Amino acid sequence: MSDKSRAPGGFPENLPSEQLVENRIRGIMERVYASYGYTPIETPAVENMETLENEDGVIKKEVYGIKRAAGEGDDSQEAERGLRFDLTVPFARYTAEHFNELRFPFKRSQIQKVWRGERPQKGRFREFYQADIDVIAIDNLPLHYDAEVVLAVQEVFEGMNIGNFTIHINHRKFLQGLLQIFGIKDEQTADALRIIDKADKVGITATQENLKTELGLSADAASEFLAMIDKKVPINEIEGFLKNIKGTNPLLEEGKAELQTIGALLQDSTTRNGKIIFNPKIARGLNYYTGSVYETTLDGLEKYGSICSGGRYANLASKFINKNLPGVGISIGLSRLLSIIKQEKLLSFEKQSVTDVMIGLFGEEQRAIGNKIAQSFRKADLNTEVYFDGNKKIGKQLEDASKRGIGYMVMIEGAEGENGYTIKNLQERKQETFTSVNEAILFVK
Amino acid sequence: MSDKSRAPGGFPENLPSEQLVENRIRGIMERVYASYGYTPIETPAVENMETLENEDGVIKKEVYGIKRAAGEGDDSQEAERGLRFDLTVPFARYTAEHFNELRFPFKRSQIQKVWRGERPQKGRFREFYQADIDVIAIDNLPLHYDAEVVLAVQEVFEGMNIGNFTIHINHRKFLQGLLQIFGIKDEQTADALRIIDKADKVGITATQENLKTELGLSADAASEFLAMIDKKVPINEIEGFLKNIKGTNPLLEEGKAELQTIGALLQDSTTRNGKIIFNPKIARGLNYYTGSVYETTLDGLEKYGSICSGGRYANLASKFINKNLPGVGISIGLSRLLSIIKQEKLLSFEKQSVTDVMIGLFGEEQRAIGNKIAQSFRKADLNTEVYFDGNKKIGKQLEDASKRGIGYMVMIEGAEGENGYTIKNLQERKQETFTSVNEAILFVK
Repeated sequence: MSDKSRAPGGFPENLPSEQLVENRIRGIMERVYASYGYTPIETPAVENMETLENEDGVIKKEVYGIKRAAGEGDDSQEAERGLRFDLTVPFARYTAEHFNELRFPFKRSQIQKVWRGERPQKGRFREFYQADIDVIAIDNLPLHYDAEVVLAVQEVFEGMNIGNFTIHINHRKFLQGLLQIFGIKDEQTADALRIIDKADKVGITATQENLKTELGLSADAASEFLAMIDKKVPINEIEGFLKNIKGTNPLLEEGKAELQTIGALLQDSTTRNGKIIFNPKIARGLNYYTGSVYETTLDGLEKYGSICSGGRYANLASKFINKNLPGVGISIGLSRLLSIIKQEKLLSFEKQSVTDVMIGLFGEEQRAIGNKIAQSFRKADLNTEVYFDGNKKIGKQLEDASKRGIGYMVMIEGAEGENGYTIKNLQERKQETFTSVNEAILFVK
Repeated sequence: MSDKSRAPGGFPENLPSEQLVENRIRGIMERVYASYGYTPIETPAVENMETLENEDGVIKKEVYGIKRAAGEGDDSQEAERGLRFDLTVPFARYTAEHFNELRFPFKRSQIQKVWRGERPQKGRFREFYQADIDVIAIDNLPLHYDAEVVLAVQEVFEGMNIGNFTIHINHRKFLQGLLQIFGIKDEQTADALRIIDKADKVGITATQENLKTELGLSADAASEFLAMIDKKVPINEIEGFLKNIKGTNPLLEEGKAELQTIGALLQDSTTRNGKIIFNPKIARGLNYYTGSVYETTLDGLEKYGSICSGGRYANLASKFINKNLPGVGISIGLSRLLSIIKQEKLLSFEKQSVTDVMIGLFGEEQRAIGNKIAQSFRKADLNTEVYFDGNKKIGKQLEDASKRGIGYMVMIEGAEGENGYTIKNLQERKQETFTSVNEAILFVK
């Protein structure tokens, strides 16, 4: 197959059966996010390049620039635009641009695609969905929002029914305060966080080595530090854990106090599939986090890393507006999650069609009555098709509907249904005949 | 405000109140499309440039190419990719690429953005949503699908409740057959269709002139031809109208027969707000249509042109696969429609928040009970927030909720609600106190 007939590499697309699953889990995110009052917004795929620059004015090499294929007119300007690589930067820009038209605290959800020109590897896409919520306030943002964003994503994961999962919580100030106790200077913090962040990947021994060689910790200090943070503490036991931390400094105490407040708001939050733990080894790579941080792993599938992460930031929009706008947010890697669900077969992909009910026809002369019945099923919120060719044998129609993963087939008995309506459950292979369409609808529902 | 703090020109974004309206109308499209069995698919924003080329290997100058900002590695390839400019070409490519995994007829819906590097004018965007349905079959596609796509969009427009609208139907074979009777040669057809297509814009006199000078028609012939097509025929009267057409040729007869079949399927299809008419002056600019064609106008707002168009094509995917795949489809310009709805104030934009119910707090000590009550409201499908600062006066909380366009505020009477729950309807300014949360929920619902 030639290139023109293929989607470009690294830009994945779903078969219908996969798209239906993606839409179902996206629908859960939309509903749960809205239920907590996160108002959905969307931003353009394209931003000015200046918007996408980091604080040092540098554009990441993964950013895609856009340019009209046949240059003309204001092309000089067009070359200065690019596709967003996350939803956080556009959200900060959006908040700044529309500052006077928004009411704060501003709670928004955003489920859109982002683009990164990375080398496509297994599970690494160049175009993928993220599903974010953030709340941003002027000057002060209460800590109860840190707990809320965690509870919202817990509800999303619970609703998807893809198995057990764990939400890990930590706190940047707590971690940095702890590092200070071990003599790590503030300018070494970024390196320290990076080393800790990959501890789960490289293992404790290698991490201890890295702390020694890169940060100059003694073997004993490195070992003691790692012993302190290599713990998974049930959220209900956070207070006891924090009391046992030796040493003190203002940053550490601040982190401990915030962790206790957030921990208290998350008491007894264990759900059927999900638990929340305090995990002092969670660091998060991004440097804009300044308070609580979160990661989420699927139990037994920790090899895939975190599929839902976030945290609190002191002021994300400072590049765009001269206001103090603290925020907290969390992001689900929707496309990445779908690829894990596919890989690990966590959900069924049998349904290839959005259709719930197929109306079969004993001949094309039944099409008009078929259309009429279909409208009744649609009014009852059942997606309904009338078979495309009434001249095909009914057995062939049944087989086709069944292969599409459609749940039910209706057969009109008599020219106009005067002998009733037979409903066949195509998965369970049982059927029943009803005298009225309404009874038939109730059977399906 | 500097460029970095602004979305780029021509790339519109919605305020929350506008996004809520857009999501509502998109939701109607999704539900109606699904109810007819159109399975939602999505394709990547990015396609190989070869995919986007027209039949002559030419890339339209409006197409945006993409290129990594900092070139490295396989950049030569990356330059050969671009953003899709419609959903039809990617759908054809998708059908070809996944041909063996799809079941035909394949009914798909696709609601995604497209990009065109056009000079931004009023109502012309560089990034906008389209909402398409198409059905594609192998070798033969029954005419009842032409009627179905029209009925589906009629239901969408009816559901949006934005006023009266008219769906115009015509047929390429009918029009071309008619042109043949007036001596227009096949190689002149494209020019003739272009002239007819802009008749509504430039007027009948100018169109008559164009037919004379560009196609060589006599003044009498041009006038007679225009008199024949300058009609708006109720769909129930199509048979009578077609009988009165003088002259005959195979193409005309084919067109007439197909129009009669489609017209019969659309008999008595007038709804509260929408009517379907036969309008022989509708031509559609795109050259891939080969049968029925459709346009949709809002009554009294015809100046905005067609906001929902489509038609039948003999073989759209021939560039991508060596199969005969006829199809029929229709597309709603969702972003364009939203801009008209805004401009003409066809819907209310007062709600700035997705929240239905705000739980007010007489002090922060009510937060825990507030959170608990909020969960009960959420379980009843009501989007619910707990006020962010319980130390603010309740009057201030009410005012804030009201300004956000939130419908209801709940006040917890007594520390734990032992004195009941007062619900205030914020729009109608009336309130009632209930002893149980369930009663309060029923009041809101």
